[in-house]
Amino acid sequence: MATQQEIAIFLAKEFPASPCTVDEIGPQSAVVRHKVDISALRPGGTVSGPVLMTTADLGLYAAILGEIGIVPLAVTTNLNINFLRKPAAGKDIIGVCKLIKTGRLLIIGEVSLYSEGDDRPVAHAVGTYAIPPRD
Amino acid sequence: MATQQEIAIFLAKEFPASPCTVDEIGPQSAVVRHKVDISALRPGGTVSGPVLMTTADLGLYAAILGEIGIVPLAVTTNLNINFLRKPAAGKDIIGVCKLIKTGRLLIIGEVSLYSEGDDRPVAHAVGTYAIPPRD
Amino acid sequence: MATQQEIAIFLAKEFPASPCTVDEIGPQSAVVRHKVDISALRPGGTVSGPVLMTTADLGLYAAILGEIGIVPLAVTTNLNINFLRKPAAGKDIIGVCKLIKTGRLLIIGEVSLYSEGDDRPVAHAVGTYAIPPRD
Amino acid sequence: MATQQEIAIFLAKEFPASPCTVDEIGPQSAVVRHKVDISALRPGGTVSGPVLMTTADLGLYAAILGEIGIVPLAVTTNLNINFLRKPAAGKDIIGVCKLIKTGRLLIIGEVSLYSEGDDRPVAHAVGTYAIPPRD
Repeated sequence: MATQQEIAIFLAKEFPASPCTVDEIGPQSAVVRHKVDISALRPGGTVSGPVLMTTADLGLYAAILGEIGIVPLAVTTNLNINFLRKPAAGKDIIGVCKLIKTGRLLIIGEVSLYSEGDDRPVAHAVGTYAIPPRD
Repeated sequence: MATQQEIAIFLAKEFPASPCTVDEIGPQSAVVRHKVDISALRPGGTVSGPVLMTTADLGLYAAILGEIGIVPLAVTTNLNINFLRKPAAGKDIIGVCKLIKTGRLLIIGEVSLYSEGDDRPVAHAVGTYAIPPRD
Repeated sequence: MATQQEIAIFLAKEFPASPCTVDEIGPQSAVVRHKVDISALRPGGTVSGPVLMTTADLGLYAAILGEIGIVPLAVTTNLNINFLRKPAAGKDIIGVCKLIKTGRLLIIGEVSLYSEGDDRPVAHAVGTYAIPPRD
Repeated sequence: MATQQEIAIFLAKEFPASPCTVDEIGPQSAVVRHKVDISALRPGGTVSGPVLMTTADLGLYAAILGEIGIVPLAVTTNLNINFLRKPAAGKDIIGVCKLIKTGRLLIIGEVSLYSEGDDRPVAHAVGTYAIPPRD
């Protein structure tokens, strides 16, 4: 297991250019945030799909690190995302992540993504991660 | 319908910061390229999942523009991606996109993603796009 | 909107051979049950994947009927399912379904599937349905 | 590796009630058939989604058996299916399956599903299977 602080330090070191931060780590769960600025906008003035996918992937990765400790080689094997509503243009994206299976080889989790301050999800994702064999 | 040149101009204007380019547009198909530089790397020295997702999404969007013309408000409703192999660290990502259904309201396509120069796919994605009503 | 009883009558008439029943209909939600008998078993003595997929699809369909009324031509456009744990061989499968977006043209929902009496999900699915234009 | 005949015998023994047959096994590929009769119909007179999902799952399973031999405990971990067109009511469903990654622990494949005699796919699926450790 790893704490929010340990995970934040690890991610800042491994992904120094990332616009995402880890707000909370809980039991089999994480809350992450993707800062939104003008580079994330697309036609129609909304946040792009890749920003939402990036947040979902990072959030599940953070929840996994919280559960099994700092395992840099966990890899995404599948991500399925549904885009539900147009995100607000000027609001950070918040990803609320929950692991639904923590197996020995595969970990699966789901993420609801929100524009900060609105409780209707803008997207929902489910991801699968392969975990390298542990001793 | 729109040509490769029209689509390249449209995307360059709409997404000026994008590292993706449109190499080819064909009947219900497109080939796109994501330039790979150091900012796309993640632990283990490979290209990140979000880079692959971005390329898949952009490639399908380009194939749709090629099919139905410049429709800036086509929106992704679902993207499912499987990560198959570790991409090569220093190679561009090539997305080969094919539409499998062009409906009035929904367009669905699939993408195989490659590290340039290797014919084994590094990822495979399927995406659904909602098309605004046309006259 | 339609009640549990109206939906049960509709489904029994439309799918007379179905092993699924609708236990509850709530706001944007449904609970359904797939009776498990020997024909649903596969190697290793567990419930088959198609049984779980059928339950997920039927459950989301029931939740949609509960939300928008009896609309026999709602059609599934996408279903993504993750299989999480081996179901118990002799237990009914319970699907707990929640709609996460009710749009004019598309409705999206998620389902957690359980072996009756065990609160760890055996599968999790997300489905999208296209709704015929309404007056 | 296993032949079409070995796989057909195995599946007939393991799933005696199955309406699916294996028409062909090739390198990393399979063609399967789901007989269509009246029990597979749903409102609107078409083949049900679960029939298509069952065919996709069985077809990928057959392609895997063809590739790695008779391994009864391969299990589906993820299936994502897009429904593309209304199947013809009285036609068998044909599933054309191709493996896109054969890893040591995970095998991933895609399936295009057709109503026999029509070359426009009625559905497209991608599935992931976990393989028990082999000696």
